[in-house]
Amino acid sequence: MNLFRNFKSVTKTCYGRGSFGKFGEILEPHRNAAPGQARGGFMVFLVDHYFQGNEAFLSRIPKQAGDEIIFCSTAKEPTTEQIDGLRDDILARRGLPAGLVGIGGGNVMDVAKALSLMLTNEGSSVQYQGLNLIKKPGIYHCGVPTISGTGAEVSMTAVLTGPVKKLGLKCDWTVFDQIVLDPDLIASVPNDQWFYTGMDTYIHSVEAITGTKKNTFAEAYSEKSLEMCREVYLRMDRSNSKSDEFLMVASYMGGLSLTYSEVGVCHALSYGLGKVLEMHHCFANCVAFNQLEDVYGDYVQEFKGMVKHNKVNIPQGLAKDWSEETISAMAEVAYNLPHMWDHAFGPDWQQVLDRERIKGWYRRMRSTGSANG
Amino acid sequence: MNLFRNFKSVTKTCYGRGSFGKFGEILEPHRNAAPGQARGGFMVFLVDHYFQGNEAFLSRIPKQAGDEIIFCSTAKEPTTEQIDGLRDDILARRGLPAGLVGIGGGNVMDVAKALSLMLTNEGSSVQYQGLNLIKKPGIYHCGVPTISGTGAEVSMTAVLTGPVKKLGLKCDWTVFDQIVLDPDLIASVPNDQWFYTGMDTYIHSVEAITGTKKNTFAEAYSEKSLEMCREVYLRMDRSNSKSDEFLMVASYMGGLSLTYSEVGVCHALSYGLGKVLEMHHCFANCVAFNQLEDVYGDYVQEFKGMVKHNKVNIPQGLAKDWSEETISAMAEVAYNLPHMWDHAFGPDWQQVLDRERIKGWYRRMRSTGSANG
Repeated sequence: MNLFRNFKSVTKTCYGRGSFGKFGEILEPHRNAAPGQARGGFMVFLVDHYFQGNEAFLSRIPKQAGDEIIFCSTAKEPTTEQIDGLRDDILARRGLPAGLVGIGGGNVMDVAKALSLMLTNEGSSVQYQGLNLIKKPGIYHCGVPTISGTGAEVSMTAVLTGPVKKLGLKCDWTVFDQIVLDPDLIASVPNDQWFYTGMDTYIHSVEAITGTKKNTFAEAYSEKSLEMCREVYLRMDRSNSKSDEFLMVASYMGGLSLTYSEVGVCHALSYGLGKVLEMHHCFANCVAFNQLEDVYGDYVQEFKGMVKHNKVNIPQGLAKDWSEETISAMAEVAYNLPHMWDHAFGPDWQQVLDRERIKGWYRRMRSTGSANG
Repeated sequence: MNLFRNFKSVTKTCYGRGSFGKFGEILEPHRNAAPGQARGGFMVFLVDHYFQGNEAFLSRIPKQAGDEIIFCSTAKEPTTEQIDGLRDDILARRGLPAGLVGIGGGNVMDVAKALSLMLTNEGSSVQYQGLNLIKKPGIYHCGVPTISGTGAEVSMTAVLTGPVKKLGLKCDWTVFDQIVLDPDLIASVPNDQWFYTGMDTYIHSVEAITGTKKNTFAEAYSEKSLEMCREVYLRMDRSNSKSDEFLMVASYMGGLSLTYSEVGVCHALSYGLGKVLEMHHCFANCVAFNQLEDVYGDYVQEFKGMVKHNKVNIPQGLAKDWSEETISAMAEVAYNLPHMWDHAFGPDWQQVLDRERIKGWYRRMRSTGSANG
């Protein structure tokens, strides 16, 4: 089963320790308004609220007079409302920026990508949730990850939670114009988050490689990403200077493994947990993956080894209060992601999957409630 | 030692069996002249002369009325004279094309990249040999490899032999706008060429990973490329349908390994063989690498195993007539590639390398004269 895809790459990529120090130089040519365009020549830096008050870090952002920093809360996943609000505020106060920079984790990456598009496309972002619905290219946008694992730095989607759907703005113009991958920036991520987020690339590489829609290109990226995850989470101490360098490449390659594949069962279940319980994506993946030995076999054993090796603290009994209504609601969200099931089980997936099987997985999470379970 | 680089990716990539069948669809939006530009709306297909007369293949090229096919001889590596001539001919007869497509091996890829730039930059290509000397973006250009291994499909250089230098037109605009990687297209490559060309990616991945300028990004790509080369050249029969799929990804990843590294000793010697004896690049690499056990150790043993496993026919006694003058001339070419020596041996390379050591390597090639030796 061959997927025909013609994927758009991030235009320019800068990888390496210290590369954030060159970011001012990289932005410089993009500060001038393009001829005939009413751009103000200012840059907007969307920064993870985690850095609020961290002057040592903030002073490294190459901010010039007229630029602004907007802190992004990442307590919840990005919403269509949040994007529309940011867009309306910036346009009303300042007009169109010359460019937009997201500095943070996967959520901030997605906010930057979505906002870049919504600054030039009229109406609410709700109407653009889906594939190729965006009408015009967005403004110049850059991603500077400070946590690694989601692959959002290379993906062509900006996932938004809307009033009805949790679905991405997905098109060639979503892809970043520039990414700066500086392993120094992920050194200070708290340990639990470092683990959950890294597991996102491990899990979607597993899903990419085990399903029906993969090809050799996707396999190569998945395999290398998995190998690097094993180094980081099973063989190295986090204090090893190679650890952050590996993780950043693993995230990048894990993201590219999805160019010719799909996520699978774990992401479908995780979407249910996210939509109904507002559970964070990467954490939800860990909770779900832990129960999927019937689908992902030895990979789940390996994952459990990683949890153990890194002494990750995952709250116990997390899910003990889920009602059957909650479980049914999550199963409904998960069931309605046919492209994931099709990838995981093939075109006849309905012969092996029904809502009851999905509920069964959720019930297992309820009884153990943690990735240590 | 960290390299700061901000590399430009190929804009769009289509990988997979049968993807060449979608090429008409891919080209369609690029046939119309951009507003305000005097483009004729026609496409030029530069096709490896190997396909001349092969109607079955030629009929698959999505040629429309007004388009033209130009066959490219690959008997010699691309020259500045050839590029200038093609440019002058096309502009005089037809004006500026809407786009340019290279269909062939590394030489044809380089001709397409260079010609795309020279159609919009005045004067001779000789004056642009070097880094970032090109003044204006070229026209839309696509690469469709029909032989895999050089990595020219992803690199930011178009190597040209000029009256004085063998040096690339190297800048962000050199990089392809579109590549189509269809493993079906490399199935009919003659066995010797399939081997030599594939060894280009094996050898430059070895050089990338063993030198001083690599970083973790380059290592990841080199390692995966080497692993896939081992599958193709040591473990699989060429008749295995995975073989061509692996080789095409290995070439792509081998090319990307050079984004954060450099080639080394073998390529320096190979440039001497190319410049002085007009030996084909990939073949010259094999001849040189075979003698470099003192630098590349076990990799050379592995390479010899690949030669043996694939029963490659390499002419014997090839170099028995090299004079000392020839050897000196080649050593001079090789010695004058300091970035390769710096990468291979570090900034103090002159302490371990002089012209005599280089001549020694060439003399070893003379005495055995083949990669079987």
